[in-house]
Amino acid sequence: MTLPVLRWSELSTRDRLLALQRPVPSRAVNVAEDVARIVHDVRVHGDATLFALTEKFDGATLSSLRVSQEEWDSAESEVSLDARDALAVAVANVRRFHEAQRFVPIEMETSPGVLCERIERPLRAVGLYVPAGSAPLPSAAIMSAVPAQIMGCPVRVLCSPPHRNGRIHPAVLLVARMCGITEVFKVGGAQAIAAMAYGTATIPKVDKVFGPGNAWVTSAKQQVSQDPHGAALDLPAGPSEVLVIADHTARADFVASDLLAQAEHDPRSHVVFVTTSHDLALQVLQQLTTQLGQLSRREIAE
Amino acid sequence: MTLPVLRWSELSTRDRLLALQRPVPSRAVNVAEDVARIVHDVRVHGDATLFALTEKFDGATLSSLRVSQEEWDSAESEVSLDARDALAVAVANVRRFHEAQRFVPIEMETSPGVLCERIERPLRAVGLYVPAGSAPLPSAAIMSAVPAQIMGCPVRVLCSPPHRNGRIHPAVLLVARMCGITEVFKVGGAQAIAAMAYGTATIPKVDKVFGPGNAWVTSAKQQVSQDPHGAALDLPAGPSEVLVIADHTARADFVASDLLAQAEHDPRSHVVFVTTSHDLALQVLQQLTTQLGQLSRREIAE
Repeated sequence: MTLPVLRWSELSTRDRLLALQRPVPSRAVNVAEDVARIVHDVRVHGDATLFALTEKFDGATLSSLRVSQEEWDSAESEVSLDARDALAVAVANVRRFHEAQRFVPIEMETSPGVLCERIERPLRAVGLYVPAGSAPLPSAAIMSAVPAQIMGCPVRVLCSPPHRNGRIHPAVLLVARMCGITEVFKVGGAQAIAAMAYGTATIPKVDKVFGPGNAWVTSAKQQVSQDPHGAALDLPAGPSEVLVIADHTARADFVASDLLAQAEHDPRSHVVFVTTSHDLALQVLQQLTTQLGQLSRREIAE
Repeated sequence: MTLPVLRWSELSTRDRLLALQRPVPSRAVNVAEDVARIVHDVRVHGDATLFALTEKFDGATLSSLRVSQEEWDSAESEVSLDARDALAVAVANVRRFHEAQRFVPIEMETSPGVLCERIERPLRAVGLYVPAGSAPLPSAAIMSAVPAQIMGCPVRVLCSPPHRNGRIHPAVLLVARMCGITEVFKVGGAQAIAAMAYGTATIPKVDKVFGPGNAWVTSAKQQVSQDPHGAALDLPAGPSEVLVIADHTARADFVASDLLAQAEHDPRSHVVFVTTSHDLALQVLQQLTTQLGQLSRREIAE
């Protein structure tokens, strides 16, 4: 791996560099068409389509879409103590930061007798999507499940695609349990978004879907959000980007980890590091090489 | 006009009533196709397309898209003193309510050495759309121009379709002036959204477009927001809805005005009034009839 280290003061091509194209989500027409067909099938055939597509796309033949009691029971023992501790710390950190964002109601008499208020109310039902196609992402579960719990949304549904063995990664189940989510279903992709947006016999209909996903998931979120009978979306998530800015006091291993944590999302992810220290740039390069060697998703990050 | 007054305690069809279909935005395929063509033409031909479409849709032949100094100068004298006072009161009320919503920055050390912040920054450039196809809407201008001014967005562009006489309603210009907006252009519909999303020789490109509009405007907002090189949107505004809840202490004339203010937006607008007082219901009906007689947009409201 050779990574470019560019000295700003020596650059003859700053303009070109600054105009660097940001990663653009796949907008292939066939994605939108495929997704439209999937959404239609889920609306018409419900659970039957979910079983069929989970077999087709995830290679898993399920007897039930809902996570079984046995899976819940065994989840803890299937995750290492270190990983469990890390998840608990992450949940606590995210919870503290989101609790600090609680909305303070406003009440104001703009004219005599005209009382205007702005109040905070939880959505009735939210759908949390947790991708797992290329790697389990308990971090994504934490980011949406914690705010939904803080707000007290009465219905919180989590969908994540199963492994070929028909199970959701136990770390995702642990996060769901930490955040008080009991409605967890083994379905992914556009079909999961459609199921939550419209409801099926098994999966409750929600008012809004949250969470990142691939091009199909994003297209599904956009399509159901344009139907008043569908569901709102949080935002159309594109390929990951990160820009780290550091001076000579930064730890090279931390910087490298932060860069790799985004780079491993997607071959189209963009990671950029800006520093005032040429030494640090070289140390980060060294760290990237070292840490890449330990990554299970090395090829994507590279 | 006969309006239904329904007694809840006597209703045999509560379910049907509660399942009342909310107004749905027009989703005709030809709207999306027309809009896609307009967006394309604006991107390729810029101002030339704007002049042509303003002539075609608004019946106005313009020499300049930008509001002229003469129009700015004469705006004040063309609006009655009463109307000017009403606009100033509305701007002040909206400003007070929005200033109370300023975001309070968060700063938190979630773990030792890990400082997390959430801060508020203005968007660099915002585009404010003010519809005028069926009526001038200085109120819509107030609702987006005031927050943009409070946030201090450096570039604030306002677009509104001109009257056949080639002028924007002077009340909209007065609101723009009260809110410190100088970039006002005479262009409406999907072409205005495309112009602000991509920029033309005359109209600056913005990062996000705000404001209500008809089906074409809404479709344009959705289309440009799905292009990473376009602009974000505030929300897809559908036909207006209002639900007024009141007991016997309410003023029937106020209730009727609040209902009509939304009903006159669109024949598909929904207005619902719920009260514990049968007498008030009858008074409101009477007021609706009286006030309808004074409305220039009576047919739509009716």
